[in-house]
This record gives sequence, structure tokens and C-alpha cells, in this order.
Amino acid sequence: MDIGKKSVQLHKKFHGKIEIASKVPLRGKADLAISYTPGVALPCQEIHKNVNKSFDLTWRGNTIAIVTDGSAVLGLGNIGAEAALPVMEGKAMIFKKFANINAVPICLRTQDPQEICHIVQNLEANFAGINLEDICAPKCFQIEKKLSKNLQIPIFHDDQHGTAIATLAALKNALKVVNKKIEKVKIVFSGAGAAGIATAKLLHFAGAKHIILCDSQGTIYKNRKDLNSEKKALATLNLNQEKGSLQKVLQNADVFIGLSKGNILKSSDIKIMSKKAIVFAMANPIPEILPLKARQGGAFITATGRSDFPNQINNALVFPGIFKGALQKKLKKLTQKEFYKASCALAQCVKKPTKNKIIPSIFEKNLAFKIANSI
Amino acid sequence: MDIGKKSVQLHKKFHGKIEIASKVPLRGKADLAISYTPGVALPCQEIHKNVNKSFDLTWRGNTIAIVTDGSAVLGLGNIGAEAALPVMEGKAMIFKKFANINAVPICLRTQDPQEICHIVQNLEANFAGINLEDICAPKCFQIEKKLSKNLQIPIFHDDQHGTAIATLAALKNALKVVNKKIEKVKIVFSGAGAAGIATAKLLHFAGAKHIILCDSQGTIYKNRKDLNSEKKALATLNLNQEKGSLQKVLQNADVFIGLSKGNILKSSDIKIMSKKAIVFAMANPIPEILPLKARQGGAFITATGRSDFPNQINNALVFPGIFKGALQKKLKKLTQKEFYKASCALAQCVKKPTKNKIIPSIFEKNLAFKIANSI
Repeated sequence: MDIGKKSVQLHKKFHGKIEIASKVPLRGKADLAISYTPGVALPCQEIHKNVNKSFDLTWRGNTIAIVTDGSAVLGLGNIGAEAALPVMEGKAMIFKKFANINAVPICLRTQDPQEICHIVQNLEANFAGINLEDICAPKCFQIEKKLSKNLQIPIFHDDQHGTAIATLAALKNALKVVNKKIEKVKIVFSGAGAAGIATAKLLHFAGAKHIILCDSQGTIYKNRKDLNSEKKALATLNLNQEKGSLQKVLQNADVFIGLSKGNILKSSDIKIMSKKAIVFAMANPIPEILPLKARQGGAFITATGRSDFPNQINNALVFPGIFKGALQKKLKKLTQKEFYKASCALAQCVKKPTKNKIIPSIFEKNLAFKIANSI
Repeated sequence: MDIGKKSVQLHKKFHGKIEIASKVPLRGKADLAISYTPGVALPCQEIHKNVNKSFDLTWRGNTIAIVTDGSAVLGLGNIGAEAALPVMEGKAMIFKKFANINAVPICLRTQDPQEICHIVQNLEANFAGINLEDICAPKCFQIEKKLSKNLQIPIFHDDQHGTAIATLAALKNALKVVNKKIEKVKIVFSGAGAAGIATAKLLHFAGAKHIILCDSQGTIYKNRKDLNSEKKALATLNLNQEKGSLQKVLQNADVFIGLSKGNILKSSDIKIMSKKAIVFAMANPIPEILPLKARQGGAFITATGRSDFPNQINNALVFPGIFKGALQKKLKKLTQKEFYKASCALAQCVKKPTKNKIIPSIFEKNLAFKIANSI
């Protein structure tokens, strides 16, 4: 049976993947009088006097929301709130398994950025953090910006920063293997959506100086007319203001980072890259170029988003640990500084990187806690 | 140590009372590929084709939201979203324990009825039902009405209907004990808020013809100028259009139902009631009159909302079973018909009612399932 059918079967059998569990004793009326009325009035009053106590006296301190509008789910596109739920439940399951965090799926009907912000602000009292998920670009940037400003709890758009952190960690180790420096390499991106933009920004924060982004219209350069403000800001990193196609600007590139769509490169496109080229083809489920073909074209290190090839670069390496750290330290914001530290911690989980092992497995013991402690 | 302090201690120790648990195996990459990407894409697509599948392929079918704005929490009043959370967690714990339903606390910042409706409508995709909780009257009526109209899942305002159902069940058994008929008795209410209004309506639905409600301004009668539409509708049940104080209209009353505030009646007020009077004094934590004093005044049957007197009339007897039934039968609405059936099922849980046992204990085995199966 194929994996999709197995998945439907599993979802049917268990009716989803998560549930609410009670964690206090409830054996009889005496317990009920303590955990519920009349006893519960005192914790309520204590929180009423000081709302910060809600983090300690309720599940809030260890609970986040996974918020989506279903506008950019996996590679499936705009499939709406209900259809996004299996993915959000999957993330909630991962949050619990790897970081013991309670994550509540919140799939919203509205796809209007103002309304999404309004609703999330009204939900703030229940949560210690907000994981934005599968919201399409560029509105995901506006939403994240506005919520970061208006909320007193951290916001993390996983598609952006989870990808950026995992990619930077893998790149750090890959560069170690090929003995190149991030400040010197030419990096070419395919994809300038949420993940591409955020990854380029974090690579730049980590020292990368020469980054060329390509979107569906080709290279991004300063004077291109159709750029949104996020793309425009990154156009200056195209050092020689190269124009033209992705295939053209791969000339002498040291690193390719694919966050776009499947099957767009051939072995011959890789041949024009510099020696010991690094090729991260992360489109899911079909990468921009299969690892074997990339190696045939001369790539020295390959990585994908898939579990069936070496070097799987996956957000799930990151989001449990990032939130674990934010919640432990009661951070009110997450910034590039924390993202950078997290990627260093993630990279260091691989003691001796090799071309087939630049990133740890998501099942690596204590991974989330190592990331959490780094920030 | 008093019960409030014990409660604070419990809440601190456990950091609240509920958590998210994962219910599928997650032992390695093979499991992850089925429950998460890439396998999860197929359940998403199936739901995209038919949103009703979200009830079976995700936790939605067994999950409800407990929605409050914190405007009328316990007897504490308007304490806001954060401070309401311990009560909502308590309800979630009870939903799980007694009906195995997942209930997610949703405490909203806004207290505007339009905004509350707007937000709940946008959250619909995640839930199979909405339990409104601790929202003050009269806005709770508007919110319930609007949501009932706009949502495809059942809405249940527990403070109204949970109280009404439990009270009717207790009254049915009490009337059996004193051998009176609901159609014939004179019933006097103290309290015309959410609970009072809804209970009066359900008693009327069950056959009661003579009901006098009193609010803080005294008796409710047709020509009183300051009545909201809910109160006005019930004024016709004041058969002789009696005016004046609560104490005055208790003359010859068979039943007193207190859903107001503590300590407002004396033994001498009960003395003027008819023979074999039934006194339900349900204000929490202090009843309108203590059971002993009511009996001194001649009451034959007494009940309160408290667990330390006989005959505890408590919403928790009702809400797990009501939602269990609604979810099992995939009801889109809950109406007086279901409420009436639920109260009959609840009353029947006491095989031979006596004056000290007119209502079952919340810990009675299979209580929720008996109620669920009745509707």
C-alpha cells in the first residue's frame, strides 16, 4: 500500500493524531472540589491580580497555538482550514513527542491578514507562543510583523524560520566539509517565497555576502519592477546584479538552495557550478534535482527535504527546540539572534560532518533540548 | 489548609490540569512519513474534496471548544480572559474524564458580542461543537442565537442549558417525591440572568404553567418598563401578574429556584410557601438560604449547587453527556427537545427518588453515556 493510503488508514483508525488528556487526579468529589469549583476560584483570583501567573497556574506556560489559514499547505496550495488540519495535528504530535510542548491546531476560515491578526490577538491569553504555519507569502510577512509588534508572546513562522535555521545548520556543516567560508561563497536560490526569503536573510545574518535569489520570473536584481519589498531588500546581495535565468546564474556558484518546485534542474546545470558544489534541493515531495543527478553533474554534497535520501533538511529539526527554548526562558520575541544560535546548536549536533551527514536525524536524542538551551 | 490554597498548590504543581497527548505511534522515520509528510498529503486532499471528512480523519469529530470572554466567571464576575482559564481547564478535564471528549479552552480578549461571534465562526473548522461558558447576560443570548444560525455545529451555553437541564431533572424527581404535578405548581425564581431565564424556559417547555421570576428589581410582570426581551417573554407565566418582592410572591409557592446570590432568604420566608415546599438554593458558594434553615421554615426537599449538602444540582452532571450525544449523532443544533430528553434521562438515573436523593452523583457510572443515548 502506498504511503498516502496508509496515512488515510491511520487517520481513520485513530480519528486524528492528538487528544486532550487530564493530568490531575479526579477520583471523587474531594478532588473535584480542589481542581474545579469551589477551589478553582482562588487560582482565578490570583491570575486576575497578576495575569503573568496564568503562565504558571494553567497549561498556558507550556502551550502554543499552531495557526494557519490553509493558504499554502505543503505543496498542495490553498486547500483551506479543514484540509489543513491533518498537517497541524502532525506538527502538534511532533511538538509533544520531541519537546513535550502542548500545541493546539487553530485553522482559521478567514484568509485576510488583518482578520488573522485580530483573531490571534484575541486568542493570546491562552498561549505562550504562536507558531504560524502554511500561510502564503507575502502576507505571512505582514502577519508576522504585526503580531510581533502587538503580542507579548513569541511568534514564529515555521515555514520561514524553521527552514532557514535548518538550512543554515546544514550549510555550516557542508561548508566545513568542503572547506569553504560562508563569507566567500556564491549562493543561488531557486524560490523567493516565505522560506527562500527568510533563509536568504538568515544566511546573510550569518555572514553570507553573495546571494542571488531567483523566482518564477528569473533573477532578482535591484531594478526589477515587479519586486515586493522583501525581495527588493535582498536584491543588493546579488553582488554583480546578474540577470537572466536560474540556470545562467548557477555559473560558478558554490551553493544551490532550492525552495521552489520539483524537477527544474538537470545534471548539466550543476556542471557549471564551482568545484565541490553544494546542492540543497528541498522542494517536496519532488526535489529541484534528484541527489543522484546532482552528483552526476559534479555536486559534492547533496541534501533534500526527504527522509529517503541522506541529509534530510526538515523544519521538524527546529520548531520543537525553538519553542522549548522560548517557553523555558519566557521570551517575548524571537529574533535573528536566536535563530542563528539555534542553527549553530543544530549544526553542532553532528560532531564530525561528512558529505553524507551534515545534519542530525530528527530522532537524535535530546535534540530539541540542545537547541532550547542554546537560545 | 483551605480548599482555595490547596487548589493554587495543585495548579502550581501540575501547571494547569490538561495537556495535549499524541495518540499514534511515532517510533522512527517510517512512522513519521505516514502520520506527517509526505503521507499526510492524502488525508488533506480527501478533506479538501469533502470537508465533512474532517470529522473522521482528524481529532475534530471528538473535539469541542470551551469559549468564554471571562465576563461572568463563577461568582467572581468580569475577571477577563486569563483569569477564566483555570475554570475552562477544569471543564476540559471533566469533559475528558466523564465523556472522553477533547475540549480546548478558548478565552477571548474581546468582550464584544459581534467580535466573539466573528472569531468563533472563524474557528469552526477545528471543532465539532462549541460550549459557551461564563459569558454574562444578556449578551450570552445574542451570541448563542447568532452562532446557532451561522454555524453548522452545535452551540451550547452551559450556564443556561446545563443549569436548566440539571434543575429540571431534580425538580421532576422532587415533584415525584411530594406527589405534585409540574403543570399545577407555582414556581418562584430568584435570578433572571442566563441560568434563570433558560431554566424557566425549559420548565415551561416541560409543562410548568405558573412561573414568577424575580430579579434585583423584584417580580417580573408584563408592564414593567425595564425588561429585556428575554424577561418580557417570560412575564406572561406570572399568571396573576403578581408584583412586589420575592419574599411576597413566595406566598403559596410550591417551588423556589434560586439562581441569584447568597443569603437572601430567611426561614420565615419559607414558612409562607405551600405544604411540602421544594427549595433549590443554587447560588454558589453561598446559597440563597442554607438547607437547614429552609427545612426549619418547612421546606420538605432542599437542594444546592454544593457538594457538601445532599442533592447537588450541578452543570457537570449534564455537559459531558449532552456533547457526547451531539457528537455521536453529529447533530448540527441542540434544541429544547434535546434538553428535555437529557433531563428525563438524568432524572431516571435515580431509580427511587427520596427527599435526600433527587439527583445522581456526577461520579455515577456511565452517566454521560446515558444522557448521550437519550438525545
